[in-house]
Amino acid sequence: MASFASDNTAPVHPKVMQALIDANSDNMSAYGNDPVTEKLQETVRMTFGAPQARLFPVFNGSACNGLALARMIRPYESILAHRQSHINNDECGLPEFFTGGRIIGLEGDHARLTVASIGDLIERTLEHAPHTSRPKVISLTQSTELGTVYSLDDLKALSGFAKSHGLYIHMDGARLANAVASLGCTPAEVVAGVDILSFGGTKNGAMLAEAAIIFNPELVTDFAYIHKRAGQLPSKARYVSAQLQALLENDLWLDLGRHANAMAKVLCDGLIDRPGVGLLHPVEANELFVTLPKVTADRLFARGHRFYNWPNEGPDAYRLVTSFATTEDDVKAFLEDC
Amino acid sequence: MASFASDNTAPVHPKVMQALIDANSDNMSAYGNDPVTEKLQETVRMTFGAPQARLFPVFNGSACNGLALARMIRPYESILAHRQSHINNDECGLPEFFTGGRIIGLEGDHARLTVASIGDLIERTLEHAPHTSRPKVISLTQSTELGTVYSLDDLKALSGFAKSHGLYIHMDGARLANAVASLGCTPAEVVAGVDILSFGGTKNGAMLAEAAIIFNPELVTDFAYIHKRAGQLPSKARYVSAQLQALLENDLWLDLGRHANAMAKVLCDGLIDRPGVGLLHPVEANELFVTLPKVTADRLFARGHRFYNWPNEGPDAYRLVTSFATTEDDVKAFLEDC
Amino acid sequence: MASFASDNTAPVHPKVMQALIDANSDNMSAYGNDPVTEKLQETVRMTFGAPQARLFPVFNGSACNGLALARMIRPYESILAHRQSHINNDECGLPEFFTGGRIIGLEGDHARLTVASIGDLIERTLEHAPHTSRPKVISLTQSTELGTVYSLDDLKALSGFAKSHGLYIHMDGARLANAVASLGCTPAEVVAGVDILSFGGTKNGAMLAEAAIIFNPELVTDFAYIHKRAGQLPSKARYVSAQLQALLENDLWLDLGRHANAMAKVLCDGLIDRPGVGLLHPVEANELFVTLPKVTADRLFARGHRFYNWPNEGPDAYRLVTSFATTEDDVKAFLEDC
Amino acid sequence: MASFASDNTAPVHPKVMQALIDANSDNMSAYGNDPVTEKLQETVRMTFGAPQARLFPVFNGSACNGLALARMIRPYESILAHRQSHINNDECGLPEFFTGGRIIGLEGDHARLTVASIGDLIERTLEHAPHTSRPKVISLTQSTELGTVYSLDDLKALSGFAKSHGLYIHMDGARLANAVASLGCTPAEVVAGVDILSFGGTKNGAMLAEAAIIFNPELVTDFAYIHKRAGQLPSKARYVSAQLQALLENDLWLDLGRHANAMAKVLCDGLIDRPGVGLLHPVEANELFVTLPKVTADRLFARGHRFYNWPNEGPDAYRLVTSFATTEDDVKAFLEDC
Repeated sequence: MASFASDNTAPVHPKVMQALIDANSDNMSAYGNDPVTEKLQETVRMTFGAPQARLFPVFNGSACNGLALARMIRPYESILAHRQSHINNDECGLPEFFTGGRIIGLEGDHARLTVASIGDLIERTLEHAPHTSRPKVISLTQSTELGTVYSLDDLKALSGFAKSHGLYIHMDGARLANAVASLGCTPAEVVAGVDILSFGGTKNGAMLAEAAIIFNPELVTDFAYIHKRAGQLPSKARYVSAQLQALLENDLWLDLGRHANAMAKVLCDGLIDRPGVGLLHPVEANELFVTLPKVTADRLFARGHRFYNWPNEGPDAYRLVTSFATTEDDVKAFLEDC
Repeated sequence: MASFASDNTAPVHPKVMQALIDANSDNMSAYGNDPVTEKLQETVRMTFGAPQARLFPVFNGSACNGLALARMIRPYESILAHRQSHINNDECGLPEFFTGGRIIGLEGDHARLTVASIGDLIERTLEHAPHTSRPKVISLTQSTELGTVYSLDDLKALSGFAKSHGLYIHMDGARLANAVASLGCTPAEVVAGVDILSFGGTKNGAMLAEAAIIFNPELVTDFAYIHKRAGQLPSKARYVSAQLQALLENDLWLDLGRHANAMAKVLCDGLIDRPGVGLLHPVEANELFVTLPKVTADRLFARGHRFYNWPNEGPDAYRLVTSFATTEDDVKAFLEDC
Repeated sequence: MASFASDNTAPVHPKVMQALIDANSDNMSAYGNDPVTEKLQETVRMTFGAPQARLFPVFNGSACNGLALARMIRPYESILAHRQSHINNDECGLPEFFTGGRIIGLEGDHARLTVASIGDLIERTLEHAPHTSRPKVISLTQSTELGTVYSLDDLKALSGFAKSHGLYIHMDGARLANAVASLGCTPAEVVAGVDILSFGGTKNGAMLAEAAIIFNPELVTDFAYIHKRAGQLPSKARYVSAQLQALLENDLWLDLGRHANAMAKVLCDGLIDRPGVGLLHPVEANELFVTLPKVTADRLFARGHRFYNWPNEGPDAYRLVTSFATTEDDVKAFLEDC
Repeated sequence: MASFASDNTAPVHPKVMQALIDANSDNMSAYGNDPVTEKLQETVRMTFGAPQARLFPVFNGSACNGLALARMIRPYESILAHRQSHINNDECGLPEFFTGGRIIGLEGDHARLTVASIGDLIERTLEHAPHTSRPKVISLTQSTELGTVYSLDDLKALSGFAKSHGLYIHMDGARLANAVASLGCTPAEVVAGVDILSFGGTKNGAMLAEAAIIFNPELVTDFAYIHKRAGQLPSKARYVSAQLQALLENDLWLDLGRHANAMAKVLCDGLIDRPGVGLLHPVEANELFVTLPKVTADRLFARGHRFYNWPNEGPDAYRLVTSFATTEDDVKAFLEDC
């Protein structure tokens, strides 16, 4: 039986584990003032072609998004995000807690925001000041919560709009590797116009490692305070940094993303023509959203396959997530029981 | 040269690292619903003789204290803690952020609170309601911020007072192993009367692993929400739990604490009779606070020894911290350069 | 020219002003420990047939809602309210600020919530704990933001659902007088099942006077702290209480509400059959939402009539609000220019 | 019998009441866009010789301080204030709630801060970043919580220090009239170097009226959002503004402050030489802090005089406050029973 429950049920990639072992000698300064973290800073700048970028290691993705947004808005400002985004639905209010502000949930096909959906709202909101929180940041999830990907043109349009309206761009990159692998672009291209990126490692082979990567230099100021005050400054930071270093070296992160995407494709191909199976969104990364006949779903669960019913997408909707650790055998076993 | 800068500059103990390697196979449910965390729950209950105890794995100690306190108070309530405590001085406002409430910093010799210092304050405060935040919890650091330890009698007096006044007891146990080792008591004895313990692993050989251990069953209710909303729920929780399991198995944590304490004792013995050296607090755990002649301090720094000037204790005061990784050679090298 | 911009552009009713003059003698204890406030407590209990009710005077309605909700939820809980409600749209995040929690904006015809819209959401949310804030209170606006009124049956259904699901009922009664006048019921009937009422005076002839009226005795506990900490405890409370006393005495509040409703009805009758005029919601209280031909709206504005375009209801939608101070001449003048 | 309990137990001055009556006609735009508030803006600029000053009407002084401080600091910053200040002791955590930051309570004779007490702290705190909140504002109470007054030289030294260290100056002017009357200076002189003033009306003859007066133009930006979000934007703002206008016209506020100060002086003179009476602080405004023999205090209470025991200043310490409404007969009656 295979697990398609989530990419965070997977173990840690061997190269990440080896990096932790390698980092484990000698005393090192705490709080990120260590050579492992310093090296990672350079690696990040090279990877994203961003010599001014500044990375802050963080324990988990929920918090990473919260920190980034807290740096960008004041409590009387708001965050524009897709109604189905993780920050809007799955964080028990963490972004509001960290920022003091509000999330405005917007519509958009396949979990993608569009300039059109935002423009109208902005105008109406500003007219109503100070009775309505002022929009200050657009938060994009790349790849999205529904397994789709913003194209480079989509991103250009949104960041162009943002700049012209005094808005920041935040990118929730918990699954950025899958998006870059899907687009076949460079890392630099996918973050063009992004002010702060939440860079995800945990869903892509790390143990627990994320990072806020700040591309807009003015937002570096005071970030260290926000990082500390929210309980996200690792004292033994080298062990978070070592994980991310292992992922970035030799583009391991992209290899892993590519593999997960490929497995999702195989899974999709094997499912799509079966009677009663419907594809709810294009499969552009490592997640499938499908309708399944109840009898099929029940049989799969009974045989030990792990995946989630997804009621937000309808009563007979299901989510299947692949990861770096998914094997062709996993997919085959699933399809055989299907 | 040796590092006495902090117990968080040390690496990870080999047994903890091995436990991480051992945990690294197969898919496992996320968010703590995994067998590693379940086993740890049992281990914690056995260790503290507390069959109702409930553990929540947490990334770091700052946050662990914040979560515990957030469960205990409402925003219009206050936390009584020593003026020199970590929560009052070194968290950039994290406890206030997580709780919404206030910390009232109290005096007490050698960083230990006493019933006398609290009783007077409580009465005056309640008379002034609702103009003053209502005291609701006493937060004790064991071992303390100044390297001392509350005796079991001290703890009994404080928890007795707390119960009779409707206050909770929180214990910041970032260095609990050192306190238990110092007292020679059982873990159960040191937490008698404690409602929530912040159990520390990171300063005692873990990579990054702390836990909120809730002894008062009524405080388990809703803790999961606070845990999640603050960004402290690890998705791959097994890797935090495995570290703590390694520490608790066969009392490794106490062996490590005992070793660190012993090194502090050797260091103290070697320093105490030298001219110009003064001991500022009794050395009861793994920290020394001493005055040093400037020339001595400068020489030590010049030779690469790492430790901190500690201006809160006076212009010529210094802090020296030992850890599980401190060797007799480290101490010897330091003393020779002294 | 007449002002239909809002009921808060009106002056203070003469009886309210007289009450302020009458209260203005002698020293009186501050913070609500005065005879004027004590008398008001009795008046409130009589008015609502609620011998256990407890009133807290408050400066404005925004804050009154925030205080009530802050008493009802913890920061990891949520408030269920209509998407068009004032707390969701017009407070710049005040309810989130005061509570730490989230507002879930629900749909419902004419700004009225229904049990059906809530039930489905509750179930799905609780299954997702702790990743989604837990619903804890239903906030109803009576009369609603769109000038409609919940019937007593509507209220019974909603409060019955709330009780059976462990939810509180909050009623935003900024325009409660208009609702009671519209229903022709007793004040006790309209608040049956309500845990805390935000009772409005300012929109109904007061200068600045609202009150949190707590019907559920368990919610009285600690309310004084929340009241104080949010800056809503008047030091010279007698002057807030005197206003509310004047409104409640001899049912002045209901007379004023009845008058405003009647003026809205006359206005509606005069508008409804004109070409190009459309009624967007039933006129059940003191607000009309209508579509007007642009030429008509422009003419009215040009002649000095005051009212608002209401883009939430469409590009050619307008809101007209009557108050205790609206005269038949005002309505006539408006209709003549229409 | 007389009341020396507080200056907020007094009624409203007749000229303030008349101003409310005069303001009570016609519809006026809400939220401060009314001619009464516009006129007040001009009056404030004239009074303080500050053509760029911007006033925001506020309901009460607790909130006014909170708003001002919320504009000045980010949640990871701190407020330097005297340990005995109102914001540190008497607000149930309101300033922390509104700002998210911390108050650092400093010592200083007679409730006055000095440059010396601040300088040392600043340096040590910044070295410890980001583990300690960053100081950003000095909050001065004028006249102080203990009835003393900062001299113009004191203020110049503090504001000079602030400017050179990138700190803002907030002045809590709940009793500013008493300070200006005491110093015999102009209003402009007392606010030289102040960034935001909390201007108090309620303790000086108003019903409920305070104002945030912003002298530093950069701090005007976004203040309207903070004002609204905290529930302090009066919908019928004209009635708050009218009170302040009445106080400022023809320097009524200074006449009232002068009278209250004079009554405090008479009271002091009558008490000072009696056996067992000790003066705890210089009487420079409208408050006396004295030790009284218990028998004397008991007799005064028994005869109906109202004033408070003040345990912060010692077990037999008492506070006596005079106001605009205190008469020579009140003082005489008190002294006769003494």
